[in-house]
Amino acid sequence: VRVWPLAGLPEIHPGDDLPAQIAELSGVAGVAAGDVLLVAQKVVSKAERRLVELASVTPSAEALALAEVTGKRPQLVHLILSESRQVLRQRGGTLITETHHGFICANAGIDASNVPAGHVLLLPRDPDASARRIQARVASAVGGRVGVIITDTHGRAFRRGLINVAIGVAGMVPIIDHRGELDREGRVLVATDQAIADELAACAGLYMGKASGVAVVVCSDVATQSAPGGVGELLRKPEHDLFRGGDSPAGIVCG
Amino acid sequence: VRVWPLAGLPEIHPGDDLPAQIAELSGVAGVAAGDVLLVAQKVVSKAERRLVELASVTPSAEALALAEVTGKRPQLVHLILSESRQVLRQRGGTLITETHHGFICANAGIDASNVPAGHVLLLPRDPDASARRIQARVASAVGGRVGVIITDTHGRAFRRGLINVAIGVAGMVPIIDHRGELDREGRVLVATDQAIADELAACAGLYMGKASGVAVVVCSDVATQSAPGGVGELLRKPEHDLFRGGDSPAGIVCG
Repeated sequence: VRVWPLAGLPEIHPGDDLPAQIAELSGVAGVAAGDVLLVAQKVVSKAERRLVELASVTPSAEALALAEVTGKRPQLVHLILSESRQVLRQRGGTLITETHHGFICANAGIDASNVPAGHVLLLPRDPDASARRIQARVASAVGGRVGVIITDTHGRAFRRGLINVAIGVAGMVPIIDHRGELDREGRVLVATDQAIADELAACAGLYMGKASGVAVVVCSDVATQSAPGGVGELLRKPEHDLFRGGDSPAGIVCG
Repeated sequence: VRVWPLAGLPEIHPGDDLPAQIAELSGVAGVAAGDVLLVAQKVVSKAERRLVELASVTPSAEALALAEVTGKRPQLVHLILSESRQVLRQRGGTLITETHHGFICANAGIDASNVPAGHVLLLPRDPDASARRIQARVASAVGGRVGVIITDTHGRAFRRGLINVAIGVAGMVPIIDHRGELDREGRVLVATDQAIADELAACAGLYMGKASGVAVVVCSDVATQSAPGGVGELLRKPEHDLFRGGDSPAGIVCG
């Protein structure tokens, strides 16, 4: 597998035709059928006019109250609440919410780095649709199927540090189900769903440091399966999740 | 970045000198100073005699009770409890525990695939030490610093599918702290700890499918920082974790 940055993307502005720009660069750089393009959420959001000037926001009473508790700007808290289904955890200045898309992350994924002063950047409204638009243009430019993954950096429960994950997927299967395959001892495998879209997103994270300026990364020579895609497969349903809801610990302390 | 499987590792048996085998293959295959080796937990555990025959285990009363509830074999439950500090969640046949190392994962990381019938494989006792032993031998063989990461596949809170993560780290910094760097607008970055060891582990997951037989993957042309390593940096302290302990949801449902 080769992981390489797609060079040449200019600074993106609201309304730019990002799919066309990425498709053109892909043709030049030699992106091939079967490759996967990882696209940083930031450029997608910028192109899709998701940059918001904080001074333009009138915070709700709820936002004012939560701003007091968290020490965050009321306008930012208002946007976080607007972008979320619910706030899952609040401690000090930390707000972990479930976005309308179903992502569980800090501050509804709203980011203030690499944007003009006084502005913040919201996640794309429908990152799967963003991925599909890029996918269609790039596939057409290179003459064959590619996979496209929109990525963002998330914190994790239990583990420190941020990791790049998939928030939109097009043109490929996001989770490979190995159940039914035989292991090397000839026994049938169970419980081996491989989150390949997140593995690829994490690879791209090697190039997508916040100060790096790399917004599109290509993975070549990787085996993916053709499919419409969709990030929904990667999101655990609340009723199957043992941690979001405040389930009590099992209460078994071991010897 | 190039991600490539290290070819030629034979089936590993208890007591094998795995560091020497990997070092020899690394020299042959052209592993270079600065590369990172990702080594699947499975071969480390096998070499370190962590294969256990279930019939040799006498389950405790607690294990018998929990086996009844979960439908798992009592001997397996006994081992899961022995390898854990506590059981964090139990639902149906699912047991999420915190291992003695501090990893939060299903079944204390104990695996029954790719091992002889009637046996299971425990995690290495000290995966950082395992990584250091491999690191020292490979560094010596290639004549310069390498990074070594022992990896395992974990499920995640909130997201479906398994992803390869670091459970032991040597020779490199596991989390890169970008705080204090400037973003492209010239403002100081905050909250940008990059879990590079987990990103690299996820890359290796592209080759380490359960049926693939690939146990060692090399990442070349990747920028890491020299350090003793240690997976502890990647583990969030319980008091800083908002999800393990059954914290109540913040109770804010958004409009």
